[in-house]
Amino acid sequence: MIILGIDPGFTAAGFGVLKKDKQRTYLLDHGYLAMASSKTISLRVALFHDFFLEKIIKWTVTDIALETPFLGKNAQSFLKLGYLRGIFYLLAEKYSLALHEFSPREVKQSLTGFGGASKEQVARVVMQLFPQIEKPKKEDVTDALAITLCGLWKKNITVPL
Amino acid sequence: MIILGIDPGFTAAGFGVLKKDKQRTYLLDHGYLAMASSKTISLRVALFHDFFLEKIIKWTVTDIALETPFLGKNAQSFLKLGYLRGIFYLLAEKYSLALHEFSPREVKQSLTGFGGASKEQVARVVMQLFPQIEKPKKEDVTDALAITLCGLWKKNITVPL
Repeated sequence: MIILGIDPGFTAAGFGVLKKDKQRTYLLDHGYLAMASSKTISLRVALFHDFFLEKIIKWTVTDIALETPFLGKNAQSFLKLGYLRGIFYLLAEKYSLALHEFSPREVKQSLTGFGGASKEQVARVVMQLFPQIEKPKKEDVTDALAITLCGLWKKNITVPL
Repeated sequence: MIILGIDPGFTAAGFGVLKKDKQRTYLLDHGYLAMASSKTISLRVALFHDFFLEKIIKWTVTDIALETPFLGKNAQSFLKLGYLRGIFYLLAEKYSLALHEFSPREVKQSLTGFGGASKEQVARVVMQLFPQIEKPKKEDVTDALAITLCGLWKKNITVPL
């Protein structure tokens, strides 16, 4: 199982790639895709598609993990998040990937044992589990790694690290 | 200018293809893509992508017209509509297509002269302009043709038919 977890967004899209091999888990890749707001939405959707397609091929990804979005104050942002999610649905079908979705509460519960945990608490657990990575510049990266870990653990993989 | 207008949806996606050539407009194609609700969302997103990619290539489409969606009672339907719209943003970038978006009010205004026109009034105008087509089985088709026409007319093409 090689899982790609993503925290999609039009300005920064954090991601993590984890591989489970018998009793060990490897952090294969992590980071974020930054897209200037001066670029058109079309271009950003295409850059997003190409960036994650390359990751899927490079790491022979088998699973994708996403967080369930909730409608906030801005309905247009919610709709636009749908554009990026649509790309994963397309890629999942084209590359036969299993697509997993978790609520923010499930991700927090999975990482900290508490569904109401703060972003900082979740980030702290991620950093403890992956001491080799430097503190990411963007919280999108720790968010994405949390989603990726949740995806691994929810698949009943009991020895994650 | 060869314009593809779409009324996207997960069960039926109406479309029309119009070509403007000097003083005349030709209806090149129209219909709808039906997708069984038994199919997964991933598969439907991919079928949708492949279907419209084929239309774009077949008719050497230059422009795409879409209607601005509004958030209704079901936020999840609104988000999922985003998946399909994301596909058009991707295709627009990959095939250098101009993407046009109109509010439902603009489409109605453009076709009937009245922004508050009913669906039936809009459908009647579409059927008058294209007497060669039989009454479509799905209103998605007339809706899509209305969006396509609006796209043609808003580009200051004054002799549409």
